[in-house]
Amino acid sequence: MSDSLFEALRNLLGERASTGAALLAHHGKDESHHPAAPPDMVVFPESSSEVSAIVRLCVEARTAVIPFGAGTSLEGGIGAVQGGVCIDLTRMNRIVQINADDLDVTVEAGVTRKRLNSDLRSSGLFFPIDPGADATLGGMASTRASGTNAVRYGTMRENVLSLKVVLADGRLIQTAGRARKSAAGYDLTRMFIGAEGTLGVITEVTVRLYGIPEAISAAVCTFPSINAAVQCCTQTIQSGIPVARVELLDEMQMRACNQYSALNYEPAPTLFFEFHGSPTGVREQAESVQEIASEFGGGNFGWAEKTEDLNRLWQARHDALYAALALKPGAKAWSTDVCVPISRLADCIEQARSDIDRSSLTATMVGHVGDGNFHVIFLLDPDKPSDFEDAQRINDRMVTRAIEMDGTCTGEHGVGVGKSHFLKQEFGDALNSMRDLKRVFDPLNILNPGKILDLSS
Amino acid sequence: MSDSLFEALRNLLGERASTGAALLAHHGKDESHHPAAPPDMVVFPESSSEVSAIVRLCVEARTAVIPFGAGTSLEGGIGAVQGGVCIDLTRMNRIVQINADDLDVTVEAGVTRKRLNSDLRSSGLFFPIDPGADATLGGMASTRASGTNAVRYGTMRENVLSLKVVLADGRLIQTAGRARKSAAGYDLTRMFIGAEGTLGVITEVTVRLYGIPEAISAAVCTFPSINAAVQCCTQTIQSGIPVARVELLDEMQMRACNQYSALNYEPAPTLFFEFHGSPTGVREQAESVQEIASEFGGGNFGWAEKTEDLNRLWQARHDALYAALALKPGAKAWSTDVCVPISRLADCIEQARSDIDRSSLTATMVGHVGDGNFHVIFLLDPDKPSDFEDAQRINDRMVTRAIEMDGTCTGEHGVGVGKSHFLKQEFGDALNSMRDLKRVFDPLNILNPGKILDLSS
Repeated sequence: MSDSLFEALRNLLGERASTGAALLAHHGKDESHHPAAPPDMVVFPESSSEVSAIVRLCVEARTAVIPFGAGTSLEGGIGAVQGGVCIDLTRMNRIVQINADDLDVTVEAGVTRKRLNSDLRSSGLFFPIDPGADATLGGMASTRASGTNAVRYGTMRENVLSLKVVLADGRLIQTAGRARKSAAGYDLTRMFIGAEGTLGVITEVTVRLYGIPEAISAAVCTFPSINAAVQCCTQTIQSGIPVARVELLDEMQMRACNQYSALNYEPAPTLFFEFHGSPTGVREQAESVQEIASEFGGGNFGWAEKTEDLNRLWQARHDALYAALALKPGAKAWSTDVCVPISRLADCIEQARSDIDRSSLTATMVGHVGDGNFHVIFLLDPDKPSDFEDAQRINDRMVTRAIEMDGTCTGEHGVGVGKSHFLKQEFGDALNSMRDLKRVFDPLNILNPGKILDLSS
Repeated sequence: MSDSLFEALRNLLGERASTGAALLAHHGKDESHHPAAPPDMVVFPESSSEVSAIVRLCVEARTAVIPFGAGTSLEGGIGAVQGGVCIDLTRMNRIVQINADDLDVTVEAGVTRKRLNSDLRSSGLFFPIDPGADATLGGMASTRASGTNAVRYGTMRENVLSLKVVLADGRLIQTAGRARKSAAGYDLTRMFIGAEGTLGVITEVTVRLYGIPEAISAAVCTFPSINAAVQCCTQTIQSGIPVARVELLDEMQMRACNQYSALNYEPAPTLFFEFHGSPTGVREQAESVQEIASEFGGGNFGWAEKTEDLNRLWQARHDALYAALALKPGAKAWSTDVCVPISRLADCIEQARSDIDRSSLTATMVGHVGDGNFHVIFLLDPDKPSDFEDAQRINDRMVTRAIEMDGTCTGEHGVGVGKSHFLKQEFGDALNSMRDLKRVFDPLNILNPGKILDLSS
């Protein structure tokens, strides 16, 4: 970046514009295996109008801007692959307005989901989207995040009512009001959700809230095979049982969780369920699921209703990545995900497992199987390039199969730099329409360049 | 249109390209009060590639194309206001693929929702979106339709998985696969939903399906005031009771329904509820609602579980427009809708009612109140221009208030030609981004011109 841009940002933000080496390094790296790409400067705006001013200065200087939230992305979405200015939004962490009666809340983009839920607790409401990491709402909107609760509550796509966005020319727009539904005009809100900061910088997010359910219970059930577990899940969804969560952990992941979280589950393919509703309702749901599970050879049906048991169970699920890493100390994790129509899920998982087993790699598999979405977590030796090549090959095959099954190259991680070479296969000619969108909203290719679309080809 | 375009379309489609006067008249008029605007020709393609060929020919001749489904739009969305070729999609009425295991179906754009549900019956699945009219799926996607079930199942926005679309240059794209969720690329699907044919012509729609609930029951309850009824509804939603439908009919509408459908309800503000779930579940839901209703002075809590009673109840609700028309024989109906955050709903309805009562107009009000969405049906003397002026004035005030309440100028009817002058107030600078979208996807302004955006200002 130019000295004059450096000076201008310093003048605007003072100490909140920094080039400290550690800070740059921290902002060039997410939780993925992708190589670090530090920005030239990190800025910490405290308002939408500051973001607007930053973008204007960067556009004038033809310098890239990269929005940054919690840095928990998994496909290299926050790397400054063409250099530029990282806009760290974590100081924009105000809860702007809780509208408890309307079941919605507006927050600045840097608020994290745990912070939001902690602030909401006294209202009896909660925000259900839970990607595992304590991501920011701006980041979650940008990657169309979802996670364990999506099967019941939807993803960010369904739960964002409105966004405040700084466009590539610095203008600030509000995409919608707070009505639950609207038939007015083009859906700009959905256009920015999942755009990974390549069409605008999200500075405020209005999301739906839900009443904390009267009763919550959970169940754990093991199965003789992944196929049986997935079939149990499929049947559950098809029966219309409104499960709040249904998570698959494969045998390897269960071994890892047992070890890491000092649990004592059978090392077998396992489904974790959660039920939300009235006390009668959750009991009824669990009974129906138990019946379905027994049809598919499910055993050891365990049941949890107490908060501490529930927390222990889901903490183990959320720690899956760390548990996997502990299987192979010193390993680097590469977490990838695909999503397919649910009838193809067992096939897709089993073929990936068979590829893994034929390689020398260690990998666990976990899935939000109610949505047809699953993850492979490769555990790679950082000093062994062949490990990365093997993972890339298995990943390529898995993604290609998922797309052939009418699925998608990523259910929730986003495209970043890691999945963009699959978009042509997934979208065909529609990819040109995406390029058109990028060109009209970011004609100078300033906004998080190099992500999602490869504009050079 | 030019003679050469006329010839070219005739060559392409033979008898399926027509300029018969009655046909043109029929295709220039929807169910709204807006003036008729017949096209110059109506064409009946039977495949996406024929639509593609038609669009190519029209673009070459710089002639407008207007997609047409069932003609049930309510804001003049299908009028050929600049002349041109009406693409009637009703011959594209194939059910392309039912994926029962995946709970989705792909249909051609001309399939109507009743036809779809009738074809689905043996599968135990149903498509819940129900705007009242027997609209086509293509039309419903284009106007982001919703209706009575949206409070539980969402709108077209939440239920379309993928679209096949012919772009302004004749290219055919598929916007997505069939995965339940995806974080891959820009959300082209949502971009075309609600675009009213101004960004592309939808030729196929893939939507989510749901299992027909094990039990369905309904309840009717009258209230001392609209305010009390709305508060009951608000409280119900806030309590997280998963009602499938909650519809408000005002006193005037109840009088109309009693008369039209030979019913015997108390002429008072009334809520119609429907509950879906297990037999225990629907009973529990109804009991909870009855408890809430009694807090707000709700009386005459009637309960229906038998199919014939349910059908009679909902038929009365669906016939609301015809019932209203029967109040004033010879009248023309003008149906308008807005949607606001639910905490503002009672206010918004009461202020509209007060405006109506201060005028000489007759109007009924019905609402999908669980979403904060309601309709005013004005009954106007077709020979009295002052009736239309009064309705316009009351409508303008109501929409302006709805937008000031952080709501929207239309919850489900769409913008068409009737609401476009409100978009600046609703979206401010974001309207420019909508214009950018239109310009990049339809640079020659060929696709349903004059709808949604006023490009002249």
